[in-house]
Amino acid sequence: MHTAHSQPNLEPGLIFDALGEPTRRAIVDHLSRGPASVSSLAEPLGVTLAAVLQHVQVLERASLVTSRKVGRVRTCSLDQTGLRAAETWISERRTAMEQKLDRLAEVLGE
Amino acid sequence: MHTAHSQPNLEPGLIFDALGEPTRRAIVDHLSRGPASVSSLAEPLGVTLAAVLQHVQVLERASLVTSRKVGRVRTCSLDQTGLRAAETWISERRTAMEQKLDRLAEVLGE
Repeated sequence: MHTAHSQPNLEPGLIFDALGEPTRRAIVDHLSRGPASVSSLAEPLGVTLAAVLQHVQVLERASLVTSRKVGRVRTCSLDQTGLRAAETWISERRTAMEQKLDRLAEVLGE
Repeated sequence: MHTAHSQPNLEPGLIFDALGEPTRRAIVDHLSRGPASVSSLAEPLGVTLAAVLQHVQVLERASLVTSRKVGRVRTCSLDQTGLRAAETWISERRTAMEQKLDRLAEVLGE
């Protein structure tokens, strides 16, 4: 089981790459409504269990999903770690840009 | 020139795919400190002008960058449209998940 608290090299590239693929975004979307088994993820997507498992592994490496297997059922949950890291990366750049624009406006107004 | 206000099919896939590539993230990073010409973007990255132009086109299609050419100089700026769309996509999923967890905690506490 992947633990949500360790943050081994949280790479924005891994996170954005993972979210660039439509099936993986659909999995994240589904899990935002609550944990789900791999088979219940596969059904509405119309893909095989093996395909979902591969996507889940990519999402786990990006810290976007955690999963645990109890008996024969693997249950997946959304992992805040990756979601927050991606939000932070974007908002830092947006904020820096806004501050720059504010300073330019100040200088122009002087 | 790409206009920042039109939002033609703002596709999260395009945005996340664009941000999945390290050179393109470096360009976004650079532009968060202010507008820059294509050649001043290319220099610190150690890549050709042609390569930067290609990356800029991908970023423009994702509404992450706008550019305009005056004379022989093409100047690039960060576009808030794509940055905000990516932030919104992520934060909506994170919030939905948090609300679900809150409801679960309530039910367990009843």
